Parts: sequence; structure tokens; C-alpha cells
Amino acid sequence: MMMGMDQISFLGFDVFGTVVDWRSGVARAAEPFLAEHGLSVDPFDFAVEWRSLYQPSLQSVRSGERPWVKLDVLNRESLETVLARHDADFGSISDGELVELNQAWERLDPWPDAVEGLTRLERRFAIGPLSNGHIAGMLNLARYAGLPWDVITGAEISKTYKPIPQTYLRSAAAVGLHPHQVGMVAAHNEDLGAARAAGLRTVFIRRPHEHGPHQTTDFEATQTWDVVAESVTDAADALGCP
Amino acid sequence: MMMGMDQISFLGFDVFGTVVDWRSGVARAAEPFLAEHGLSVDPFDFAVEWRSLYQPSLQSVRSGERPWVKLDVLNRESLETVLARHDADFGSISDGELVELNQAWERLDPWPDAVEGLTRLERRFAIGPLSNGHIAGMLNLARYAGLPWDVITGAEISKTYKPIPQTYLRSAAAVGLHPHQVGMVAAHNEDLGAARAAGLRTVFIRRPHEHGPHQTTDFEATQTWDVVAESVTDAADALGCP
Repeated sequence: MMMGMDQISFLGFDVFGTVVDWRSGVARAAEPFLAEHGLSVDPFDFAVEWRSLYQPSLQSVRSGERPWVKLDVLNRESLETVLARHDADFGSISDGELVELNQAWERLDPWPDAVEGLTRLERRFAIGPLSNGHIAGMLNLARYAGLPWDVITGAEISKTYKPIPQTYLRSAAAVGLHPHQVGMVAAHNEDLGAARAAGLRTVFIRRPHEHGPHQTTDFEATQTWDVVAESVTDAADALGCP
Repeated sequence: MMMGMDQISFLGFDVFGTVVDWRSGVARAAEPFLAEHGLSVDPFDFAVEWRSLYQPSLQSVRSGERPWVKLDVLNRESLETVLARHDADFGSISDGELVELNQAWERLDPWPDAVEGLTRLERRFAIGPLSNGHIAGMLNLARYAGLPWDVITGAEISKTYKPIPQTYLRSAAAVGLHPHQVGMVAAHNEDLGAARAAGLRTVFIRRPHEHGPHQTTDFEATQTWDVVAESVTDAADALGCP
């Protein structure tokens, strides 16, 4: 095992992209909605377009331009933005339909290795989301996908969004640990860079298909993270969790 | 099933006394400490005496006399108060010993029915502590006792202590639910009374031995709670979780 990893008690996970496949799940939920409302956009493209507004929406909170709100509020706003771009007829779309489509982010399939990998890691480490998702969304997603979290940390605990340092630091404090006792697990180099700068250990999981053919980044580890793995099960191997 | 219970999605549990046996666990941790420091007090009496300062310590926060602090801070202060009453020689007691003894509250055995009952309930309901315990304490206790929580709600989420209504209301909001979609599970009538007043459903579990021979209250349900059960497994039966 890498030096220092034996001091870790808690592994905090990025979730969207690292643990679950948001692109397929959102496309699956969007397909009947798009057909029903005569919107001629490929459901997978729709998913990626919706997701492309994720970082800008977080940035409005991170910058202080607006007060902290839960992720489902931001996702809902982004959804309406994307629909407007495609000239959706909002008069024919009920609020209930938008609520349900927005809940696509709580009904995503885990990557094939995720549940087994988490189950193995959870025997040795406390595990939980350290995600920008809100608590209810992370809870519903965990029950949908069978993710065996011990606790939910991240944005709602810290009232800020990654990669702002307090997101990592307040999550570590919430589970009663120093930053160096927490491992951040993510498929995104930027997330790990911020986690490392805050004093956390880092575990990279390669997810080259997260964005489908549109992926442009995070094909490889761009720094010498403490662990670099091909999957959650591979990370479990590297962390001594058979 | 009782009317309205089919609307419940989340069961929030009182933990100390309802799910775990704090009296035996604290006595077990205190015994070697008391012997080491020559304090002639029965470990079970010591546990009950320590616990007797619990509500007064919470009251100092609930009243606004002091800002919200995590439960382990209050428990530590109460520990020092009890030790002082027994004329402990603080010069011979290290901070590390007090830290470790205070962690007794994170190393408590579940009541014999608790893990099976929670496991059955968790197949149908999301479950979590809705306790005055802090997140790290609830996490550590869950891993010690094998409690299969989905999420941790309660005092640290709400930054207030039961039975103040916001503790229940903010916990319900954190899991994305209306109060009537949440069931409060507790061995304490006062807790359930406050939960009901806040709009939650109520499940009473009888724990007549929580305080050992010192118990004076909560032998029976004092109101017509939605469910009255003898154990967590009995509650699982009543809630249709075989």
C-alpha cells in the first residue's frame, strides 16, 4: 500500500461519473420525455448537454453570486435552460413532469464494479459520498443503486461546493477526522487536486467513458495520486480489501 | 398497518436507549478506568450518573445559553463533572484517558433485536439515526454495532437538539420528505410527543431496562402512538417488513 494510506479511516467518494453512470441513466429517463414533447434531440446528447451546465451552475454558488442551494434546485434550473434551447413548449409540460425528469439524477445505475468494490472497501473503511449532491439525492440514489454508504458527507454538510476547500475540510470534520485520515476517491483530476491541496489522500479511478464520445478530459491520472485504479474493485485491491 | 403509516418513506431512530444499550456499554468502558484511578463507584451507577447530566447539558444549548456544540463536547464536560463529584485526582488522569472513556458512547452494543430489526426495516424504508448524537459518533457507533443506516440525520444536521421541533423538521427536509412521510422511532414518550407535534408519525419501542434498576419512566406508551412495539423486530412485523 502507498505510504500514508494506512492512516485512512474514511473514504469519501465523488459519485456522478465515479460511482454511477449518469449519462446512460439520464438518457434513459429523458428519452420518453423528449419523444412525448416532440423534441428531436438524441437522449444521450441531451444528458451531456444538461450535465454541461453543472459546473457553471455550481460556479454561481461558489463565487458567492447566489446563496447556497441544494443540487436538485440547480439541476432543475439547468434542465429548463436546456429545454428552452431546444424550443420546448413549456405550456405543454407540467411541473410534475419536470420534477420527475429531474429525479433522473437519483436513479442512475452504478458502474459494474462499483457495488462489489464499495462492499469490499466498507469492511475496512467507513465510506460515504463526498459529492456535490444533496443528502436526499444521495440517499435516494444509494437506495436505487444499492450503494452501501455508512454516512453522507459533501456539499450539503459543508454548505459549499467542491472544489472549494471547505467542502473537503468540513466533510472530514463531520466524520471526526483530520484531512490526512480521509481518502478522496474520484474520476476527476481537478477534484483530487483540490482534495490533495486540502490535505486529503487521493484515489483516482479511471472512467474514460463517463461522457461517452464527448469525453475530453480525465482519460488518465494527471498527477501522482496516492492510488490510481481502473475501477472500484481495483481500488479495493490496491487498498488491501480482498 | 396503522392509518397513514403507508405514506412513510424514512424511519428516523432515537439511538441511545432505543437501538443500543448505553448503560452496559458505558459501565464496561468505565470499570477499568475507575479501578485504575481508585474511584469506588459501581460502574453501572457511574454510567447512569453520567447519563443523568445528558438532558441538563442539552438544555444549556436548547435554551440558547450557549451556542450549538456537538454531543461529544457535552458528554466530555459531563464526564468531568461526574469525576469531580467523586473527588477524582485530575492530576493523575491524562487527556487521552478522558478522550478514550468519552468514546464509550461510540462503542455500545445493540439491543439483541436491533440489527435484525433494522435490517428488515431497511429493505422497505430508508433508515437513519434521528438522534442527538453527532455525525461522527453515530458513524463510529454504527460501524461498531453493525447498524445498517442509510443516512445520518438529527442534531448535527439541524444544529439543534431534540425535542426542539426544528430537529425533526430539518432532518425530514434533509432527506427530502414532508414530516408526515417520516416515522420517529423511540423508546421515550417525550421524544415521540415532540415528533408528533412536528407532524411526524410515531413508533414506540418499549425498553424497560434502559436505565437498569434506576428506570422511572417510559415503561409503557403514554399516548396512542401509531405503532407500539416490544422490540425493533416487533416494529418490523407491525410495519409489514418480514
